[in-house]
Amino acid sequence: MWVESVPNFSNGTDRALLERLIRAARRSGATVMGAEQDEDHNRAVLSLAGSGEQVLDALMATAEVAVREIDLRGQRGIHPRIGAIDVVPIIPLGDTPMTYAAQLADQLGKRLGQELGLPVFLYEHSATRPSRKNLADVRRGGFEGLARRMVHDVPDYGPSNPHPSAGAVAVGARWALVAFNCYLSTEDLEVARAIAQSVRQSSGGLVGIKALGLYLARQRAVQVSMNLVDYPTTTLAEALERVRAEAGRRNVRVVRHELVGLMPLRVLLEAAERYLQLPGLGLDKVVELNLARSAIEQVMVPPPGEV
Amino acid sequence: MWVESVPNFSNGTDRALLERLIRAARRSGATVMGAEQDEDHNRAVLSLAGSGEQVLDALMATAEVAVREIDLRGQRGIHPRIGAIDVVPIIPLGDTPMTYAAQLADQLGKRLGQELGLPVFLYEHSATRPSRKNLADVRRGGFEGLARRMVHDVPDYGPSNPHPSAGAVAVGARWALVAFNCYLSTEDLEVARAIAQSVRQSSGGLVGIKALGLYLARQRAVQVSMNLVDYPTTTLAEALERVRAEAGRRNVRVVRHELVGLMPLRVLLEAAERYLQLPGLGLDKVVELNLARSAIEQVMVPPPGEV
Repeated sequence: MWVESVPNFSNGTDRALLERLIRAARRSGATVMGAEQDEDHNRAVLSLAGSGEQVLDALMATAEVAVREIDLRGQRGIHPRIGAIDVVPIIPLGDTPMTYAAQLADQLGKRLGQELGLPVFLYEHSATRPSRKNLADVRRGGFEGLARRMVHDVPDYGPSNPHPSAGAVAVGARWALVAFNCYLSTEDLEVARAIAQSVRQSSGGLVGIKALGLYLARQRAVQVSMNLVDYPTTTLAEALERVRAEAGRRNVRVVRHELVGLMPLRVLLEAAERYLQLPGLGLDKVVELNLARSAIEQVMVPPPGEV
Repeated sequence: MWVESVPNFSNGTDRALLERLIRAARRSGATVMGAEQDEDHNRAVLSLAGSGEQVLDALMATAEVAVREIDLRGQRGIHPRIGAIDVVPIIPLGDTPMTYAAQLADQLGKRLGQELGLPVFLYEHSATRPSRKNLADVRRGGFEGLARRMVHDVPDYGPSNPHPSAGAVAVGARWALVAFNCYLSTEDLEVARAIAQSVRQSSGGLVGIKALGLYLARQRAVQVSMNLVDYPTTTLAEALERVRAEAGRRNVRVVRHELVGLMPLRVLLEAAERYLQLPGLGLDKVVELNLARSAIEQVMVPPPGEV
């Protein structure tokens, strides 16, 4: 039963802390597939995979480090956040059913509440009420608004008040997504916001696209920061092309893209299929993927679907 | 010691024969990664991989089937060929050195000569003289010109006359290549030939590109049939774009592409890196490739290089 997790931590500057998070995750036997830190977002992202047990232990160990070392009272950043360990998605890999990922999320939530004293809000496939399905709703008001909000919004696990320094945490089972940023050839935040608005689903754009326009002070750049949550319907290629087109209409270019975390193999194959005009490009048409097929299929990221 | 081989057989119509070739290859324990047949080219291509011993046995078994069942005296097709089993490249995978692939090619050549009575010309890295380095030179004049040519051109192994029905065979160790066809929106062969000439290295085009313009009578279509033999220098994306541009200059479109055999993972990653504008895209950025890394690296296709 393979699962992936991409825990987000609210620290984008302390490299030594990131190393401690990585070491904590590795001790459980989980594979650390990647680790990234962004100063402007003030955020770190680990990409973990392994058995359910390994990943659960790795998440508890990293959460302990985060709660001990990250104090949100002094933390600023452009990315919305409610906690030191801010959000923990659990994603099924291979043949693992979503129900198993949801059970793990539930176990993790219970332990984060009991052992670390964190209020836990279950989201997405783990949500216990419709208003918590969408992560953006769970994070609305951020760390600063948490105390007032929790007066009437009782968490699924843990205390009914925010942890003084570490806030709260969103935990949920979900399908894989692709997170990426498009850097623009302008420093005008309004342009990035207008592009984000025109491409995201919630304001009538592309199916499965979430997007924010952000200003990165350290880099003196603006970006459209995106999530692609239904990539069989709107492919990565289509999303990028739409951003390019919307940028073009505003006389702005996309200077570069940046992947946050990892992408599923399916997304890579779709892009190659489209741009190389090779219909039906699959594992069988690539030497290494053909030969390593059994190892790959064991951890294949399933496409987003219904529970 | 993993190797790949892509033996070409001069029959593009008999599905039952292709099945027998596949079964013969599988009995040795080699993995049959793919099998394709094209009526107009009148050619079948198997893609095999395994240990040197497995692949050698698989190639002998398929050669035996080909020599018994394919009679070139009645065979026509648009693709140049000298033999029933026409060309047998051996490609190192993973850490296998080119010298090992060359030894295998030599052993195979010796056995094809002795056991099946085929004249064997060693080519590419196995060539015993400069005039045999290039496969096109080894195949010049085709099956029909073989008897006259062999009066002064002594093969490396086997008899000094062509096999009456099965001709001769080219065997050689080489680096991996990408074989693909670009179908054009015209039936004018001269246009395909002109495009082929403008893109291939030998007439001043792109480094590492071999190209032919071909007319496919059954499909009533023309194609530019290409080999990409130095894809770190000229990438698949660059080759396709050049063909598109040259087609555009002649008011013709590329309708579709077709991969012949398989492509190396590196080529897929390069294309995604280019079109998704994701610099440095590697195994680590794709979930399944990251987790199956050890299985993949064991069979990784090395980039073309020097011996």
